[in-house]
Amino acid sequence: MSELRRDPIAGRWVIIATERGRRPGSFGTERSPFPKGICPLCPGHEGMTPPEIAAVRGENSRPDTPGWHARVIPNLFPALEVEGALERRGLGLFDQMSGVGAHEVLVESPHHERELADLDPASFRNVLLLCVDRIRDLRGDRRLRYLLLFKNHGSEAGASLEHTHSQLIAMPIVPRQVAEELEGARRHFRHKERCIFCDVIDQELHDGARIVSETEHFVVIEPFAARCPFETWILPRRHTSDFDDIGAAELEALAVVFRDTLQRLKGALEDPAYNFMLHSGPLQEERLEHYHWHIEIMPKLIHVAGFEWGSGFFINPTAPEEAARFLREVKI
Amino acid sequence: MSELRRDPIAGRWVIIATERGRRPGSFGTERSPFPKGICPLCPGHEGMTPPEIAAVRGENSRPDTPGWHARVIPNLFPALEVEGALERRGLGLFDQMSGVGAHEVLVESPHHERELADLDPASFRNVLLLCVDRIRDLRGDRRLRYLLLFKNHGSEAGASLEHTHSQLIAMPIVPRQVAEELEGARRHFRHKERCIFCDVIDQELHDGARIVSETEHFVVIEPFAARCPFETWILPRRHTSDFDDIGAAELEALAVVFRDTLQRLKGALEDPAYNFMLHSGPLQEERLEHYHWHIEIMPKLIHVAGFEWGSGFFINPTAPEEAARFLREVKI
Repeated sequence: MSELRRDPIAGRWVIIATERGRRPGSFGTERSPFPKGICPLCPGHEGMTPPEIAAVRGENSRPDTPGWHARVIPNLFPALEVEGALERRGLGLFDQMSGVGAHEVLVESPHHERELADLDPASFRNVLLLCVDRIRDLRGDRRLRYLLLFKNHGSEAGASLEHTHSQLIAMPIVPRQVAEELEGARRHFRHKERCIFCDVIDQELHDGARIVSETEHFVVIEPFAARCPFETWILPRRHTSDFDDIGAAELEALAVVFRDTLQRLKGALEDPAYNFMLHSGPLQEERLEHYHWHIEIMPKLIHVAGFEWGSGFFINPTAPEEAARFLREVKI
Repeated sequence: MSELRRDPIAGRWVIIATERGRRPGSFGTERSPFPKGICPLCPGHEGMTPPEIAAVRGENSRPDTPGWHARVIPNLFPALEVEGALERRGLGLFDQMSGVGAHEVLVESPHHERELADLDPASFRNVLLLCVDRIRDLRGDRRLRYLLLFKNHGSEAGASLEHTHSQLIAMPIVPRQVAEELEGARRHFRHKERCIFCDVIDQELHDGARIVSETEHFVVIEPFAARCPFETWILPRRHTSDFDDIGAAELEALAVVFRDTLQRLKGALEDPAYNFMLHSGPLQEERLEHYHWHIEIMPKLIHVAGFEWGSGFFINPTAPEEAARFLREVKI
């Protein structure tokens, strides 16, 4: 089983997941991560994955057979596993926790060659529906503190399978950067009794320079302190800390605006590798007044160098105002 | 001029450095960053760079001519610039600062094809001597709070020039991750009246499992909560927060142990791309009891995916104990 370890100095947690199979000496040959041959995520190959956890399926189609539109399965090489007790140990200065959690794969389309950006709005909505379902289900496990939904698109962004998919990891801690966001938002609320994300939305709509698009339910911006060129956030106008609190109309609207945003990035940047992450409130703390769920998209256009990830201090060569103008004007 | 911007939610600072010349639409063609043709860092091409700031040179050789062993020059495309006043502005919720600082390039060898790991110990010591000199000099500028010395080796680690070099950026803020380390170390000191790095060194020497090598002056470990396979730290045994407080014998010893460590990584991992960063105390706070300078080396063996840099929560597929055993045993 994998384990969580805490750095005693900086306080950050890491997962040591040796079952994932990278051993010393095996790195040199693995630079090109896409396996050749058969895709385990394609219809007809359901037997190559663990049994499905959830799916959006056509009537009369049975689990683990073709006929699905989107499908959630356990990760074959999970970083964290649901079985087992959550044990905490001290090792002198060090803190350790058993690697309890969930690590699931959300196959976004039965079509191997289709990208998320190219799904039709109804298929995109199915993907989002499955996300909501999984979050609601995993909230029930009181060992789990946080759920991170994310996508790695393109091998430069860390994708190891070509077939379009996203992942979710539910974990027994709140990860560092989310904890910082939560703390910053709490501080603002203490002073102002307002949500800082709501305040940012207001200011951005007033300024206009960093707006990519706005709809009845959502605002898409390039954040003021963007870490990389074309970092893009999708923010709901309605204040709620929890993604799974989303309403039916909002979900429909999100499918449209999310797809539109990915299309803009794809059109502007020649199909870049990218990551996105859903930041939502902690699993065991619902309806926070100070926090506001949102999606952060980070195209991988430049190498994040040692400087950046050793300091947490990013150098971004593209002003977000310029990126926003470009994304507003791009033809899709 | 570039500018510093602070994210109002998470509190992190970024540099928006648009002079570095990446504009929307110019990304697709720049995946292979090494320029073809003439190397501006080679001897004989001193006129292609701004005038040198410092150098280790043979007797009778004049500045900005050949005859140097190691040489420091201003970065041609600086992320921060020394000229100009440090101005702070509020823009509603947002904080902005003018991009004042220093961004210098340390050319580690006159030989274009030589890697840092392959320098002889005397040349390696020259490089370290120049680092010490630059830090002592930049301490005098009271606008600057932190100096980060780092190296990107290999294009996958963000290097944009092949000729071996490292960089230093001195900035008017303390970057996030260093601030977290400092805060964690301060907390430990408050409880224990001991330096946490000294405590970690003691525990690691006692455990043994994560030790790569130890010498009279230095200990090399794979940290307990390593963020990536073969993350490696070089720690001085003598407590001091400031790298430039290093003594002559320690400097000689560091040249040997640093080179040995890079050789081990190179031998074990087939010349990996890597980054290293020197973490030293803030420029305007000398001789801290709770902080301890050290070097962090991060080989780039796996893609850091969106999950990692969107959450600050790393998945490491190689146990540090296994990496340490491998590095202890590698033939160099």
